[in-house]
Amino acid sequence: MLLEKIQSPQDVKGLTKAELHTLVAEARTALLQKISHHGGHSGPNLGVVEMTVALHYVFDSPVDKFIFDVSHQSYIHKMLTGRAQAFLDGAHYEDVSGYTNPKESEHDLFTVGHTSTSLSLANGVAKARDLKKEKGNVIAVIGDGSLSGGLAYEGLNNIVEQGTNTIVIVNDNDQSIAENHGGIYDNLRALREANGKVEHNFFKALGFEYYYLDAGNDLTALIDLFEQVKDVEHPVLLHVHTIKGKGFKFAEENREKFHAGGPFSLETGDYLGANGQMETYNSITTDFLLKKMAADPKVVAVNAGTPMVLFNAEQRKKVGKQFVDVGIAEEQAATMTAGLAKNGAKPVWAVFSTFMQRSYDQISHDLALNDLPGTILVYSASVNGMNDESHIGIFDIPFLSHIPNLVYLAPTSKEEHLAMLEWSIEQSEHPVAIRVPVGPVKEIGYKDTTDYGKLYKNQVRQAGTNVALIGIGNFYHLAEAVAEELAAKHDIKATLINPKFISGLDTALLDQLESAHQVVVTLEDGILDGGYGQTVASYLGNSGLKVQNYGLDKAFHDRYKTAELLEENGLTVANITNNIIAAL
Amino acid sequence: MLLEKIQSPQDVKGLTKAELHTLVAEARTALLQKISHHGGHSGPNLGVVEMTVALHYVFDSPVDKFIFDVSHQSYIHKMLTGRAQAFLDGAHYEDVSGYTNPKESEHDLFTVGHTSTSLSLANGVAKARDLKKEKGNVIAVIGDGSLSGGLAYEGLNNIVEQGTNTIVIVNDNDQSIAENHGGIYDNLRALREANGKVEHNFFKALGFEYYYLDAGNDLTALIDLFEQVKDVEHPVLLHVHTIKGKGFKFAEENREKFHAGGPFSLETGDYLGANGQMETYNSITTDFLLKKMAADPKVVAVNAGTPMVLFNAEQRKKVGKQFVDVGIAEEQAATMTAGLAKNGAKPVWAVFSTFMQRSYDQISHDLALNDLPGTILVYSASVNGMNDESHIGIFDIPFLSHIPNLVYLAPTSKEEHLAMLEWSIEQSEHPVAIRVPVGPVKEIGYKDTTDYGKLYKNQVRQAGTNVALIGIGNFYHLAEAVAEELAAKHDIKATLINPKFISGLDTALLDQLESAHQVVVTLEDGILDGGYGQTVASYLGNSGLKVQNYGLDKAFHDRYKTAELLEENGLTVANITNNIIAAL
Repeated sequence: MLLEKIQSPQDVKGLTKAELHTLVAEARTALLQKISHHGGHSGPNLGVVEMTVALHYVFDSPVDKFIFDVSHQSYIHKMLTGRAQAFLDGAHYEDVSGYTNPKESEHDLFTVGHTSTSLSLANGVAKARDLKKEKGNVIAVIGDGSLSGGLAYEGLNNIVEQGTNTIVIVNDNDQSIAENHGGIYDNLRALREANGKVEHNFFKALGFEYYYLDAGNDLTALIDLFEQVKDVEHPVLLHVHTIKGKGFKFAEENREKFHAGGPFSLETGDYLGANGQMETYNSITTDFLLKKMAADPKVVAVNAGTPMVLFNAEQRKKVGKQFVDVGIAEEQAATMTAGLAKNGAKPVWAVFSTFMQRSYDQISHDLALNDLPGTILVYSASVNGMNDESHIGIFDIPFLSHIPNLVYLAPTSKEEHLAMLEWSIEQSEHPVAIRVPVGPVKEIGYKDTTDYGKLYKNQVRQAGTNVALIGIGNFYHLAEAVAEELAAKHDIKATLINPKFISGLDTALLDQLESAHQVVVTLEDGILDGGYGQTVASYLGNSGLKVQNYGLDKAFHDRYKTAELLEENGLTVANITNNIIAAL
Repeated sequence: MLLEKIQSPQDVKGLTKAELHTLVAEARTALLQKISHHGGHSGPNLGVVEMTVALHYVFDSPVDKFIFDVSHQSYIHKMLTGRAQAFLDGAHYEDVSGYTNPKESEHDLFTVGHTSTSLSLANGVAKARDLKKEKGNVIAVIGDGSLSGGLAYEGLNNIVEQGTNTIVIVNDNDQSIAENHGGIYDNLRALREANGKVEHNFFKALGFEYYYLDAGNDLTALIDLFEQVKDVEHPVLLHVHTIKGKGFKFAEENREKFHAGGPFSLETGDYLGANGQMETYNSITTDFLLKKMAADPKVVAVNAGTPMVLFNAEQRKKVGKQFVDVGIAEEQAATMTAGLAKNGAKPVWAVFSTFMQRSYDQISHDLALNDLPGTILVYSASVNGMNDESHIGIFDIPFLSHIPNLVYLAPTSKEEHLAMLEWSIEQSEHPVAIRVPVGPVKEIGYKDTTDYGKLYKNQVRQAGTNVALIGIGNFYHLAEAVAEELAAKHDIKATLINPKFISGLDTALLDQLESAHQVVVTLEDGILDGGYGQTVASYLGNSGLKVQNYGLDKAFHDRYKTAELLEENGLTVANITNNIIAAL
């Protein structure tokens, strides 16, 4: 096997054309073998096998510098840069991450996982090269889906302005995570259909020298194209048409399903594991919204390029114009939500915690400053969410809950979640974000009739003495467990509080605590710094109460084991209980 | 005078063409009269007098909905919507803000002050109209400068995708705040030079029906154009060429100087007031960087469309390629900074606190996750900075200081500021942000030789007992004043701490405090929630110390008087001292 012998890109350069074709076949087979067992980004990587081999054959990494947008399509690049074993040997599958990672290889420039950053990064890398009066190519590989993000456009503009060598490769497989949305995609389609020649070319309009290659999975054609532009002294843009999922029938036929996912059968194309029939917080939310939208045409769901978090393709068809996918453009989603709310619609924007970061100012300046009643559903905001360092969802409390006017809610059960969502959609006072619970669905067994318009009113689930436990959202149940431990082992009946609101305090309740308590404990499923608990500690700082805040340390944790991370941060019933007892 | 009689846009519609011309002249005179005395955005408003009169003549606000990008060009709109007095009568100049404001008028849809949001807002407003099955035009007015922001591109894409009535007016005066930068501007120039006909039209490439009007200050031509597209059932884009500063010689000749500013002489075009010879923290920073850049070609300054915060036009010419203005594109600035740092340059990105919000994720995901040594200079981060509700700089501590890896510094003097900047540029460990002090320059009188590589080491300026005062950055001097008051009136020698670092605690120092203190007080020039003080309160929550945190309440304060706002928030020497004494 050739692939086993590739220790570095230099080894690719020594191959004959025939061997390169063999390498392509071996790489694709290894890729399918690994992802069918391990999961990962199938379609994006299957589509760029030839391109990646051609890139390493023609260019000279790390002198020439590759920057992959999102970098979810960098698996072949990893195989060719000394990491083939992680794709060939099941015992080593976990050796590499699913994204580029400078800790793994000098051929990986950046840790990346969010969309549309590659061109701006390349622009900076190229500018530094120029300042140092060095040579070398800077090559950014960006998918058509990533072109919907505004940062990609800012990058294109600035690469042209800079005017020196930067090679932008638009890997156009006519698919984002789901289908594409936006005016640019009509232009890309026209370009594909006319072999790169249209009346008004978006890239030429921005000033790029433009090349089109329809045969984007043809190794020889790719090598020819790359050799043609290597060492060019001005920016060029290569529009390369590839087949997403190339070489795996099921992935070519269902590009959305095989964008990414868990292990699957190579024979049937079925995903293995859970059959998806179980109720989850996500499915509950979807069911609720479908009913709500059917009953009220003003309810409109908004999403930025990850529609499956809310609706599958069939559901999207059903809701029609009451669903808007804006492309991978969270800023647009947030600001459009403000526009929708202003003009009397009832927008619900569904977004992952980690990607919501991309629209901080739009949430603040457009939605919150104008105090408009849009709803934000924040998904995967938990230590139990995604755990790649570029995708973790534990920073949303510090960055969202201190924006004025915005009400951030943390439900702890199915009934609460739905009551909050119903209230949020129908109220007209404020922007509201709901931290969609992560984990098994909990039911309280009766309808939640709370008036959430009474902002910042906490719920006391159990009145006690000595110790008050405040468990926010997903960690309410940890507070319950601590209360049980205190009762069982120390004969203490603690006060147990479900704060419901993250973005403000129930000061009346907090004021009452001092008379019968000595210790207040806060527990939150996010980082400690800038979190909810610290607002409690601050408020009670001048009182006689001791306050113990629990949360996660401020760090980009990578591919962690949740139980270990919680233990490291003292987030165990035993440790919390011990610390409480020590303080009494 | 006609203008005095305009109570609403309906009054504009009743005018003859001749009267409309008179109204234009009166509006321009009123505008010049007010801004020459009061200050404001001169050039942008002078350029759109005719356009705004034509808009209100043709369209029917508020059924038809105008959305002005940034809304700094909405002065004439205000005159025509019942607020003429605020431009005609000096006693009423302060009645209106410098931006659109729904609290002032139903003709103002949004409170806006940041760039590039208008198209996404319009997209949402139009979508809501469609969901409600209503009629009416949605009109967004966006300047050429605002087209450099990625959100504008996302908006364009999504307006085309939506496919229904939205009228985008690109007000092209060939000028951003300073000159434009980016590939799009070559296209705009080509379009202007060829009367709207070029081989590759950016807007047509995105799918817009496109109209060009070169005579953008010709009232009749504008009316004709607007009448032509009124009630169109699909998106159109009107590219209108206007003269920035039209009708005021000095503003036409020096577009950067007259973008905005304080009172000026109508006769000479000179700004009144301070002559700018006094040393400020901004001038110190500029002088330092100029020297640094001359000595080291790898030092590169980056800015997003507000270059004058660092360099005037002459200085920009001097530093040449060591300065990059990326357009009004803070995301690009942040991510390019990451690219520059990765490839061995020494980037210094200068940004206003309020606009830095537009790049939260780029700071987090690109710069901080990759732990790259770029420097961010954060300007106007203070209650004493800009005070329009859309421009306040008191939120940066909560949103920046809880990002992992990033080191946020708060200098309290000239010497400290320069030592921190020197260290930041030369170190290679972390991204570093420096909160450029606001207010009179303070000098300690000796060189600061602190090794800032010893992260989170605070400086004890005075060792005392009972009370520890921690004054962050601009508010260190308030802590000093409280210490003086405690000494003078209560015979208490307080411990006085300059923490220097915002993004982490000197836990060793905090651990020592309990032995000889009862109260710890934190003072910060930003909002309290999510701030530095709360991390102190949390850390000491389980100790016997009382902690009192001072900062501003979480709100979008608008055109406040600083002294009043500080008093409302208890930020006076007397109040802080009283609270300390009460707690002892």
